[in-house]
Amino acid sequence: MNPLQRHPELAKRADQRAVRSFNLSAVAGQISEHGSRSRAQIAAGTGLNKTTVSSLVAELMARGVVCETGLDADGSVGRPAQVLELDGERIAALGLEINVDYMTVCVCDLRGRVRHHAVVGHDNRENSPESVIDELARLAREALDVCCELGLTVVGAGICVPGLIDLRTSVLAYAPNLGWRGFAIGERMREALDDPPFPIRVDNDGNLAALGELESGALRGIRHGIMIYGGIGVGGAVIIDGALFRGADGFAGEIGHIPVRPNDGERCSCGARGCLETLVGQEAIARMVGIQGARSEVATPAVVLAERLRAGDRAALRALDDVAQVLGVGIASAVNLMNPQRVVLGGTFATLAEWLLPGVSASLADRIPGTAPSVELSASALGEAATVRGGAALVLHELLADPARAPWLTTAVAGAG
Amino acid sequence: MNPLQRHPELAKRADQRAVRSFNLSAVAGQISEHGSRSRAQIAAGTGLNKTTVSSLVAELMARGVVCETGLDADGSVGRPAQVLELDGERIAALGLEINVDYMTVCVCDLRGRVRHHAVVGHDNRENSPESVIDELARLAREALDVCCELGLTVVGAGICVPGLIDLRTSVLAYAPNLGWRGFAIGERMREALDDPPFPIRVDNDGNLAALGELESGALRGIRHGIMIYGGIGVGGAVIIDGALFRGADGFAGEIGHIPVRPNDGERCSCGARGCLETLVGQEAIARMVGIQGARSEVATPAVVLAERLRAGDRAALRALDDVAQVLGVGIASAVNLMNPQRVVLGGTFATLAEWLLPGVSASLADRIPGTAPSVELSASALGEAATVRGGAALVLHELLADPARAPWLTTAVAGAG
Repeated sequence: MNPLQRHPELAKRADQRAVRSFNLSAVAGQISEHGSRSRAQIAAGTGLNKTTVSSLVAELMARGVVCETGLDADGSVGRPAQVLELDGERIAALGLEINVDYMTVCVCDLRGRVRHHAVVGHDNRENSPESVIDELARLAREALDVCCELGLTVVGAGICVPGLIDLRTSVLAYAPNLGWRGFAIGERMREALDDPPFPIRVDNDGNLAALGELESGALRGIRHGIMIYGGIGVGGAVIIDGALFRGADGFAGEIGHIPVRPNDGERCSCGARGCLETLVGQEAIARMVGIQGARSEVATPAVVLAERLRAGDRAALRALDDVAQVLGVGIASAVNLMNPQRVVLGGTFATLAEWLLPGVSASLADRIPGTAPSVELSASALGEAATVRGGAALVLHELLADPARAPWLTTAVAGAG
Repeated sequence: MNPLQRHPELAKRADQRAVRSFNLSAVAGQISEHGSRSRAQIAAGTGLNKTTVSSLVAELMARGVVCETGLDADGSVGRPAQVLELDGERIAALGLEINVDYMTVCVCDLRGRVRHHAVVGHDNRENSPESVIDELARLAREALDVCCELGLTVVGAGICVPGLIDLRTSVLAYAPNLGWRGFAIGERMREALDDPPFPIRVDNDGNLAALGELESGALRGIRHGIMIYGGIGVGGAVIIDGALFRGADGFAGEIGHIPVRPNDGERCSCGARGCLETLVGQEAIARMVGIQGARSEVATPAVVLAERLRAGDRAALRALDDVAQVLGVGIASAVNLMNPQRVVLGGTFATLAEWLLPGVSASLADRIPGTAPSVELSASALGEAATVRGGAALVLHELLADPARAPWLTTAVAGAG
């Protein structure tokens, strides 16, 4: 018997809080999904009665989540109603990224608008993880100052790191290109920011790029989609019902480890043979353009390749045909399994998209049964900004899923619970 | 402007109906998910108030969807409450299957119990599709008679066919082993049953086997899972959040067309090279056991192979090692993408499971990054019965998703809407 069962009144109050929290999220979700809604439309969309909707909207307004933006003038019957939208002037989140040779920070408000964006070159392999975090914290504090000036309250920070992350503990298991292993990034950042009053999340580039594109890029409005992300190795993400699908343990989207040459392929860092990553990952591309070993350039072999392609280099064009063909095979596995509406190329594949898309499209068309409708294929719309915007979106989505958590306004609305 | 906007009173009534229908489904879902619930538990679980829950339960009881099964005696505080369960004595669905050389029919009640089951040998390749449907209709009528005797009202029939089906029209596009093309199975069956007062759905073996296992087999209680089904070629299904995931156009789960030997592989019926199906499908297995061409046996090459394996035939054991290794590669693609809790082998792979599982497990372990938790691998629990049970489950799930559709009781509860 759990403690709540022994105290039925407490259990009842806990239930009521859970219901209230669920309803707050449903109302915020209606507004977020449609861009703008009247109270009557929210009542119709959620099945809640109008008195309840009004009370929930009042709480969301008090918490800085939604605001009234004028009267509805769409010509429908009856008295014009106040239109509600997400409030873009009160709540914001930080997106942060540690890449091999640079760091990025951005501030996004609750409407997904970028209010601040800064990129700083920094050799994150030569410096210790601790000193990298100190530098990232400096960038974050600058962004927090900007938020303060803009009157925005920060509800969290999402950090993008190119590596394998345990989502429950925010510990980085391994980031091969940074040479980091078993580093508690979330905890270390929390210390560096003197224990800020908001959560700090850590996730990888594939997942966060997909979230960024979903929020305001090439996956916007897509119900079922796939992101394939060239970065450190090859990552990716699966979008189902308009949200990031994480799978049973948070490891969904490992497109880079789909076997493409399972028998005669090269050994992958994961231990298997012929993973997609061994053929179209950063190292494979570096080999193609003959810059492996040249460390300062290794970070951007795709950029070097893009320059040669632009110059019409024949060997580069042939190499790209191979990359496109193999990418098509890997994407075919994902498409046959998931039947997505759209597949988006991100990271280094977006840098090379201009030359890759026709070949990938042809390779994919060869491998999808004729009766299946064709899937849309496109490049990232946000480019390198996708990941930090995804970091901010991760935190903002968490808030919209449970608006009652917005802590700084709790006392002001204590009477409305 | 849509017609409802011009008639606000009608729009309001339509909204109310939609809300009522949504709430009926939420209540039925609570009971179905937990097995049994009291009205208070349903109110807590759905966030609806107790008066509304009582009214919704009354309607579900009137419609034959739920029933009271006695008092709750779990020792919790307060007056013992009536326990509600799905009613297993009033509503049922037919599951039907057309296979190459047999047909199956079953009756499942709303609790998923099999109330009638019959298998009839029938050469469905030698006979015209029309005459096959006539024979299937005869089986269905016998099952309807059984339902009548048992006092069960049939709410629909789900037909399993080994082929590509357009789910919107219930037209079979192509069933290679039956030699059928462009045949309107659903419509033809409706005629053969003299336009029965219930929907007739058609789906493929991979999807329906997964639904059957989800309802009462190896996928029961699994949130994210994969079914890989050896039948005509190789099919499969993706389970997400405890439900069949169909993808953007109903083509999700085409595991058989995941490329495994994309460069040097054999041409697949889909046009691509080296699909999983070309290596572990029925024809490939028939070749291994040397029975291709012998038509009456082609239907069950896996059974012939199983016999040889049981006898310790060395060549058969070696062939099986190859099948297991390749299956592992295909499954690795699915696991890296979806991170499922469990992968279930069905159809011919279930027949061979005893010999396949160790090899598939080893091949899969080689291809999943070391940091990822291991996925469970198991054989179908229902065997050949999975598909017909899935056919019945398809229809019963539709009813639970919209209990207000139960047509035969509408007038009795008209006042309760």
